[in-house]
Amino acid sequence: MGYGKDDELAINTIRLLAVDATFKANSGHPGAPMGMAPVSHVLFNKFMTFNPKNPDWVNRDRFVLSNGHGCMLQYALLHLFGYGVSLDDIKAFRSVDSCTPGHPEALDTPGIEVTTGPLGQGFANAVGLAIAQASTAAHFNKPDFDIINNHTFFFFGDGCAMEGIASEAASTAGHLQLGNLIGIYDDNHISIDGDTNCAFTEDVMKRFEAYGWHTQWVKKGDDDLEGIEKAIAAAKEVKDKPSMIKLTTTIGFGSLLQGTGGVHGNALKADDCKQVKSKFGFNPEESFVVPQKVYDMYHKHADEGAAAEQEWNQLFEKYGSKHKAEYDDLKRRLSGKLPEGWEKKLPTYKPTDKEVASRKLSEAVLEAIHDVVPDLIGGSADLTGSNNTRWKDAVDFQPPSLGIGDRAGRYIRYGVREHAMAGIMNGISAYGTLIPFGGTFLNFMSYAAGSVRLSSLSHCRVIYVATHDSIGLGEDGPTHQPIETLAHFRALPNMMVWRPADGNETSAAYYIALTSKSTPSILALTRQNLPQLENSTLENGIKGGYVAVENENADITLISSGSEVCICIEAIKYLKEKHNLTARVVSVPCFEVFDTQSKEYRLKVLPDGIPIMSVEAMSTLGWERYSHEQFGLNRFGASGPYKDVYKKFEFTPEGISKRAVATVDFYKGDKVRSPVNRAFQQLI
Amino acid sequence: MGYGKDDELAINTIRLLAVDATFKANSGHPGAPMGMAPVSHVLFNKFMTFNPKNPDWVNRDRFVLSNGHGCMLQYALLHLFGYGVSLDDIKAFRSVDSCTPGHPEALDTPGIEVTTGPLGQGFANAVGLAIAQASTAAHFNKPDFDIINNHTFFFFGDGCAMEGIASEAASTAGHLQLGNLIGIYDDNHISIDGDTNCAFTEDVMKRFEAYGWHTQWVKKGDDDLEGIEKAIAAAKEVKDKPSMIKLTTTIGFGSLLQGTGGVHGNALKADDCKQVKSKFGFNPEESFVVPQKVYDMYHKHADEGAAAEQEWNQLFEKYGSKHKAEYDDLKRRLSGKLPEGWEKKLPTYKPTDKEVASRKLSEAVLEAIHDVVPDLIGGSADLTGSNNTRWKDAVDFQPPSLGIGDRAGRYIRYGVREHAMAGIMNGISAYGTLIPFGGTFLNFMSYAAGSVRLSSLSHCRVIYVATHDSIGLGEDGPTHQPIETLAHFRALPNMMVWRPADGNETSAAYYIALTSKSTPSILALTRQNLPQLENSTLENGIKGGYVAVENENADITLISSGSEVCICIEAIKYLKEKHNLTARVVSVPCFEVFDTQSKEYRLKVLPDGIPIMSVEAMSTLGWERYSHEQFGLNRFGASGPYKDVYKKFEFTPEGISKRAVATVDFYKGDKVRSPVNRAFQQLI
Repeated sequence: MGYGKDDELAINTIRLLAVDATFKANSGHPGAPMGMAPVSHVLFNKFMTFNPKNPDWVNRDRFVLSNGHGCMLQYALLHLFGYGVSLDDIKAFRSVDSCTPGHPEALDTPGIEVTTGPLGQGFANAVGLAIAQASTAAHFNKPDFDIINNHTFFFFGDGCAMEGIASEAASTAGHLQLGNLIGIYDDNHISIDGDTNCAFTEDVMKRFEAYGWHTQWVKKGDDDLEGIEKAIAAAKEVKDKPSMIKLTTTIGFGSLLQGTGGVHGNALKADDCKQVKSKFGFNPEESFVVPQKVYDMYHKHADEGAAAEQEWNQLFEKYGSKHKAEYDDLKRRLSGKLPEGWEKKLPTYKPTDKEVASRKLSEAVLEAIHDVVPDLIGGSADLTGSNNTRWKDAVDFQPPSLGIGDRAGRYIRYGVREHAMAGIMNGISAYGTLIPFGGTFLNFMSYAAGSVRLSSLSHCRVIYVATHDSIGLGEDGPTHQPIETLAHFRALPNMMVWRPADGNETSAAYYIALTSKSTPSILALTRQNLPQLENSTLENGIKGGYVAVENENADITLISSGSEVCICIEAIKYLKEKHNLTARVVSVPCFEVFDTQSKEYRLKVLPDGIPIMSVEAMSTLGWERYSHEQFGLNRFGASGPYKDVYKKFEFTPEGISKRAVATVDFYKGDKVRSPVNRAFQQLI
Repeated sequence: MGYGKDDELAINTIRLLAVDATFKANSGHPGAPMGMAPVSHVLFNKFMTFNPKNPDWVNRDRFVLSNGHGCMLQYALLHLFGYGVSLDDIKAFRSVDSCTPGHPEALDTPGIEVTTGPLGQGFANAVGLAIAQASTAAHFNKPDFDIINNHTFFFFGDGCAMEGIASEAASTAGHLQLGNLIGIYDDNHISIDGDTNCAFTEDVMKRFEAYGWHTQWVKKGDDDLEGIEKAIAAAKEVKDKPSMIKLTTTIGFGSLLQGTGGVHGNALKADDCKQVKSKFGFNPEESFVVPQKVYDMYHKHADEGAAAEQEWNQLFEKYGSKHKAEYDDLKRRLSGKLPEGWEKKLPTYKPTDKEVASRKLSEAVLEAIHDVVPDLIGGSADLTGSNNTRWKDAVDFQPPSLGIGDRAGRYIRYGVREHAMAGIMNGISAYGTLIPFGGTFLNFMSYAAGSVRLSSLSHCRVIYVATHDSIGLGEDGPTHQPIETLAHFRALPNMMVWRPADGNETSAAYYIALTSKSTPSILALTRQNLPQLENSTLENGIKGGYVAVENENADITLISSGSEVCICIEAIKYLKEKHNLTARVVSVPCFEVFDTQSKEYRLKVLPDGIPIMSVEAMSTLGWERYSHEQFGLNRFGASGPYKDVYKKFEFTPEGISKRAVATVDFYKGDKVRSPVNRAFQQLI
């Protein structure tokens, strides 16, 4: 306690860096940084322990700016504390290839934990970071060795509070009693449409109480630094509930337009910049000014953080001498590597093995590897029995007081909250010690799309177990049968979409998903049984595409994925017997991985000379990339037993053959070029 | 009041129809129907007015089953009241081409208002239906003519209560003080993962109070029919708040597994079916039994509904004689037709007109037509100033008590709630008197994907105004720049995705969007200015694709959409001057509409003989359908002024030309076939 002129100076320095950067960029959001500079100053200096020289220190306190448009606040803080963000970087705010993009991106900027901006995402990420902390602590802390005990702090605004994903995440955090999580709600009454009174008149604190959060209200967020400090201190004392502090602030504090929408998403006008600088006792003619005193104060705290890490390192070494296995395990986890030889546990199958649904094959993988890959922490959005995401002896991750699990449990009951599940998984992944997987129906991956996109953009190693992947789910009908979903996610950069055709391909999908440190995966898995294919091996599967059935002098290549591969293989016989045509079949479980193979290999799989027809029981969009003709489902499905549904839409040997014949006829006499041949590289 | 044996008989009849139908289908959800039969019996018979012989009567009370997996409840009710659902239809539950699919589908079954099943959707739809009622009432009711005064009732379960979309919709409904909306929360403590205690321990009633809802709790939902009736009656009395009644029920009431997850999503075992029938006094050996008494009771209520409609029709005719214009307008709206000559108001442009961003062009359309198309009711998810969705003199749709709008207002402040906005729009559309449009950034259409999918599946005429449609949004950066989004929605059946290149194309998009009664539209619009193109006309635009620049003896066709069309046109000159190549340019504002043109026309646009290269600043996935080579962005974008970002990724005349040259070289000497030629029809 005891705040004075220097604190005010620091707070105003942050405010003015935001004013100057947005003015120079002629773009950005000065309002939130100007309003939230006071709480940031208190939070970072009084409560947070971190070392700017090593932003990766595992036990650092985490900070998430869920209202990511206010990122100049965070860039200013990172700069003042001595992270790798220079004043020049701040001057380059929102310019191409700067480390200060328009919204915070974890990959671009040292000290940014998670990529935020799409509203509500940071909220869910923060819940994930807190879960990861609790889980990691439960696994690694020992008597006298409280090595994992950081907090997760996050800011969120009215926009985040309105988003469904934040509601889902808040309900989850309340249920899980995450005492290590403290959120500060910037109650500034302004969103883009103006006064929140136009759309958002609910009682936010009461809502959070209903979720089981501890709540406090600091009414004078612009200057009551003592009040802010007291509230955060009180929140830290609450160990069995997440905390939210409603902080009433003035958006754009100091601007002539303070308290209005005018300072939300626009730079201040030149004369407003000047007057606010004068008001704050700065030279109105100067920009990007940081008084040495402010650097000194912030660097002092950074030094304390470095010392804290030093101390922690010593503790951790001592821990290593007492708890060698755990020490090695944590070090390994932080390296991103998997345990030596883990892949030997992956199930493999022979063609004579019985038919199994790929959701069950996925379960078999999890059953086989969960012991040897302790980093795995999984769950489902209330579809555990359908997604087959839970190994037999799994313990739930729960607050011990409920008596149905504990903090060391590795199975998360996400509830019917797909979007929060995905956002939480991103947060868990960002913590650095865990690899999250989570299940839902493929169709409901669409509910989670906002977070799935950020898994890709932020390079999170997360695995989406997306079962019931087609009309093959049958009776639930068109509302549950994905048509567009694979095209959607295949179009998402840095996302591996797998649709395995059998057991070995499923194991291959997990192999690549787990060993790809910076790429998320979606595993599209069947409800219905699938046979084990002849040429399917781990080695073939991990190439993303391979020849499932080769035939000399073939008339046509059938290319397919997942549950339609075996129907294509059946069609070979039908085509030969009824039409005297020879077909070969290619299985492509993963476009993205297949595309990374050499051109030579891809041309072997998809050779010149004969037409290629794709077969997949959903939208054909995108299959044109690998085929001349496409057989798919460019309409919604139907409710019924899955065999009837497949028959209705002609995904049968007969239906495939009919179209294959048409394709061979159509291309007869043509010099058919494989679509693997391209005039230029698409990726730049 | 005064319930007796006959009521119990009716309730048990409903329960057993659900038992028998799921048993016969060996699939489905008996638990919710068995638990909610009592409240359904009371609600439908005591409170709801409807005419099964005319399910389209505009002033009917609306019912939405947001927990749509319990649809056998609804099918049983529809059958008993005499809608077009026979006992044979119920026996065909969940079989292909039945009118009793696995989840309720508005198109399939008379009496189903909206398509539900994906959890939370029905909740948002119900809010939309209530908004539509309030709006329609405000526009049409007159002294002595309370012609629009129906209520919207809906059921929702724990799953819906957990979904973010329902949270968003509930907050919106509370803000809007929708007294015409009554939700019944099936508090049965069971979701798929078992006891809700594993993931959902919040205080739901308190949360709804926080949203501004009137709340009540009926603790004995299995048999306290009086209590249920009282609660619904009390809810109807509350005119300034939506109401929720927490109804504690026993899932699968009567089954040996009642109260457990075992009855949620599985048919009862054979002996359980028998014991429950015995328990209810039915013959255990018989199935699909409806006692005549039950038919009589339900048909009597149906007859009362028919009489009520008759009475209403008379009132409406009287209304017509006093208020001819309104009468005609309402009749026209219900026909789905637009006012005669409205299209003449659509703005058109000459090539010499100034450059304008297509989001502003969209605003110009709304400004021009909102008077002549009074069916339009629009809004934005808190991006009004960016989406340009509000005409100048628009009044907000608000509860009058807030003093910032009224019930006749046609502009809805959705708040930062994209998913609920889309779900609410589906509900508004389903009401039958309004055409909703709603704005957000194209990137955040992904947040709404769950509802957008149902717009398509349910044939809702809704218009998504999706601005900031590419890296052209500039400084906000990759978190806000769509890459995969257009591929996603282009793969969605029955969705028109428009990306207009200029003013006339924007008007064309609105023309088709508004005149397509059963197809939703997404209008992807730029932040940045676009020139008016030479060959762009309304007539060309409404074809979905046309030749923007023709050139005899061209070496290559460039095909493009939106903001990249004008860059392709610039590239023509560059290609000629620097490489002596002749290019022609095709603009394809809408794949879906272009695909419906004759093959002859499409071949004229995309002729054989020369290679076609696509240019669009996002994922190339899907462009293979119209082109031999694709130039796009199969990676995330960058934060910076948009011209810098376009330059970085080479979406410039030079960058296009470089790739066009490679394309021409690559295909030199080939007999190039237009991709319009196909071996077989894809749609079946």
